[in-house]
Amino acid sequence: MDRRTFIRRGALAGAGAAALASPAVAQERITWRMVTTWPKNFPGLGVGAQRLADRITTASGGRLTVQVYAAGEMVPPLQSLDAVIDGTAEMSHGAAYYWQNKSTALNFFTGVPYGMTSQELAAWVVHMGGQELWDEVYDQFGVQGFLSGNTGVQAGGWFRDELTGLDSLKGLRFRTPGLGGRVWEKMGATVTNLAAGEIFQALQSGALDAAEFVGPYNDLALGFYQVAKNYYTPSFTEPGLATELVVDKAKFQELPADLQEIVRAVCQSEYDTVTADFMANDPRALQTLVNDHGVQVRAFPEEIVEAGAKAAMEVIAELRDGGDEMTKKVTEHFISALNLMRTRSEGNERGYLQARSQYFTL
Amino acid sequence: MDRRTFIRRGALAGAGAAALASPAVAQERITWRMVTTWPKNFPGLGVGAQRLADRITTASGGRLTVQVYAAGEMVPPLQSLDAVIDGTAEMSHGAAYYWQNKSTALNFFTGVPYGMTSQELAAWVVHMGGQELWDEVYDQFGVQGFLSGNTGVQAGGWFRDELTGLDSLKGLRFRTPGLGGRVWEKMGATVTNLAAGEIFQALQSGALDAAEFVGPYNDLALGFYQVAKNYYTPSFTEPGLATELVVDKAKFQELPADLQEIVRAVCQSEYDTVTADFMANDPRALQTLVNDHGVQVRAFPEEIVEAGAKAAMEVIAELRDGGDEMTKKVTEHFISALNLMRTRSEGNERGYLQARSQYFTL
Repeated sequence: MDRRTFIRRGALAGAGAAALASPAVAQERITWRMVTTWPKNFPGLGVGAQRLADRITTASGGRLTVQVYAAGEMVPPLQSLDAVIDGTAEMSHGAAYYWQNKSTALNFFTGVPYGMTSQELAAWVVHMGGQELWDEVYDQFGVQGFLSGNTGVQAGGWFRDELTGLDSLKGLRFRTPGLGGRVWEKMGATVTNLAAGEIFQALQSGALDAAEFVGPYNDLALGFYQVAKNYYTPSFTEPGLATELVVDKAKFQELPADLQEIVRAVCQSEYDTVTADFMANDPRALQTLVNDHGVQVRAFPEEIVEAGAKAAMEVIAELRDGGDEMTKKVTEHFISALNLMRTRSEGNERGYLQARSQYFTL
Repeated sequence: MDRRTFIRRGALAGAGAAALASPAVAQERITWRMVTTWPKNFPGLGVGAQRLADRITTASGGRLTVQVYAAGEMVPPLQSLDAVIDGTAEMSHGAAYYWQNKSTALNFFTGVPYGMTSQELAAWVVHMGGQELWDEVYDQFGVQGFLSGNTGVQAGGWFRDELTGLDSLKGLRFRTPGLGGRVWEKMGATVTNLAAGEIFQALQSGALDAAEFVGPYNDLALGFYQVAKNYYTPSFTEPGLATELVVDKAKFQELPADLQEIVRAVCQSEYDTVTADFMANDPRALQTLVNDHGVQVRAFPEEIVEAGAKAAMEVIAELRDGGDEMTKKVTEHFISALNLMRTRSEGNERGYLQARSQYFTL
């Protein structure tokens, strides 16, 4: 529907309401289809997509009703963005780095190894020009992205055997996708990417030595603890996975200003709700893993953490220098924003948590 | 206006709109007065109150127009809550701990020494039953509170002389209000509470040896660096100041469901925006303080950090055992939620920031 049709229809629907001060166009009721990359009821993320849709519907009094399609219900999960681009759906809920074949710059709006935490990412996007860069990337495809959730710092993964140092990684068959996978490859692991549903069996059969997925809240249900007892945490390759809501930009701009603000406010509000969900429920799931399933929680050996940082710097430099001008621009902006903010987050937030963990017990 | 009048007026206003599917009541346009405890344009917090009001107005298409009154414009800042209780205003924007004379339990919804970080507080309130307890406290006064912002971990304060250890605190005249003040008193300081506008002169005249306010973003404008060059950070008594939006509960419940959800979503969304504002702008202000004004940034000596934890445990235990049943219940719930979440935040978030600060430079 183009802008003119939209306004005409709105004017017709609102004809009886001429006495009201709201513009007549605001009264039209529309339904938008949201495809997602998540299984239905997937803890934290799939549940978050549904809640986001419901809150937009409620806040708009049904004038913008959002109908959710879980992964595969309308299109396969990794075709969600294309569904919005080709008009099959008006919205997609997923993670920007799934579309790095369209632009590697999109990695930065989800999370990169040793990159921004959820709070830093929100600050970059909201207050430091990140959103404008993201818009520039997505404008090429006629869509717009909004942050809509974050897992926070994830777990490092499930390992059949204990790790003693870098030597333990030589040839280790590790399921870990994306840029994180490249970091582990540089450290000597043999990295594979299996779909979530295939991990358990590969670990059980010995085809995999290790696998990482998200964190306790999601991992518990997949039963990895039955075949790999060493749970390493935290991850340094996934300081947070940010989810995005993507909208068809032309259709979004045709919405009246109140509905646009409702979509923005609900997305940002869900960024908080989803992060809080993981903060509240990861430790509950971890307790179950430890107390009921005998899982050993471990930290990565220091030489792996250090080598991981070196590898992450290489991976990020490769993105910056890969020849794509947009990605170069986004990488440089991301680095300079991170370097500014880390004086605060590594100073205050880290310093505070350090002091509390060391001295405070109640 | 009682519920019946509200519905009747709504029905009249909406009479011409009977053909629309939205309930007629939803079309009424109302204006609510929001009193705040912040000076106009106060960085982060006053600006946040205004932006929150504007976003509610926009998202509701003007059906709920929020008119902001800065501190003193309608009532003195510390009478904001009373203004909502007595019906002078419909909303108040401030911090719950300003009203601890009504219930000491309210401290926990703003922040307590060595207590929850902004992310932990959001998780407790949104997903762990914190909101329900907060509602129980405020139900006594016919109001409801929503989180609407957070400063994140604040700075520790401005000190004329360098601190070498606990001995430096004996008789030190320190401006630091609230529960944080009690913690410093237990460590030997002589604590006073001056209004923001009086701090500079007291530091300059030597009536004060030290003062803390918020963090670089707010402190820069007050000029403390001219008279005290030692800036200690982070604070351990203020891991975050959460702001609240308080509404008249009966009037809020009379709003149609869409406007209620808009208020909720915008508040939660602003919790993210305000936190991001401090994350982005504190380090910029700190750079100015260091590079242009020769400020020395220092961390508190370890024996002060440790003694502060012991004092904070005593202060929290005193709240719990102070004889007020509601405060006891809230304190116990807060402690148990914090103890659960710290396994994640001190494990993952702290661990990640520690690794990044140690090994990652780009």
